[in-house]
Amino acid sequence: MTVSGVDLDARPPRANVNEPMCGSRLVLEHVTSRWGVLVLANLLERSYRFSELRRTVGGVSEKMLAQTLQTLERDGFVHRDAKPVIPPRVDYSLTDLGREAAEQVWGLARWTERRLGDVEAARETYDEARTS
Amino acid sequence: MTVSGVDLDARPPRANVNEPMCGSRLVLEHVTSRWGVLVLANLLERSYRFSELRRTVGGVSEKMLAQTLQTLERDGFVHRDAKPVIPPRVDYSLTDLGREAAEQVWGLARWTERRLGDVEAARETYDEARTS
Repeated sequence: MTVSGVDLDARPPRANVNEPMCGSRLVLEHVTSRWGVLVLANLLERSYRFSELRRTVGGVSEKMLAQTLQTLERDGFVHRDAKPVIPPRVDYSLTDLGREAAEQVWGLARWTERRLGDVEAARETYDEARTS
Repeated sequence: MTVSGVDLDARPPRANVNEPMCGSRLVLEHVTSRWGVLVLANLLERSYRFSELRRTVGGVSEKMLAQTLQTLERDGFVHRDAKPVIPPRVDYSLTDLGREAAEQVWGLARWTERRLGDVEAARETYDEARTS
């Protein structure tokens, strides 16, 4: 069956991130993007103004942060609240859907911090085995 | 205090992914890299031979898969087992540390598959609000 030029029978029966053309892979890439991960993990703790968030996520440029927030807003993860005040004030917070994603990446961020020592030890062992 | 040319006092008191120079950010980037996520999530289900894994992770090139596996092996997440047989056979599986990381990204992969419909609906709403 074809609707608007799309062959529905050619779509996978269910979403599958292993399929390059499945939309779930793109969502996974947004959620796990370099800045997406950090934005979601920080927003799980509280809402942020743009400039605050930029200071918190070390190393992000204004342009990349704006792009990341826009992608996450379009995917329904982030709520953008522009207050009608002077000077303009924009707050970013998580939607319910975004909170679900953020809980998972927050866990991953805290895990990498906790396990950094183990990873560094593994790298030393790996490198030593290849230079001796 | 300086040891082997490293100023220990200049290191952050604990790992923090928000710090661009903290090693945990690089680990997080390895675990959440485009192919790293998919490799870890698949290896949580079972061990794979290289060629099998390449067929499973749709769209990955031989070079990118080899690089991803090597990075994950060096970080201590993946165990590479080269069997002394002809033709050569190499199996990849998770270490205990890798299993911890993989459980988190596996959860994230399944979540994006389950929530794809909600994300697509959010995008439609977003796009409609901007074209009407």
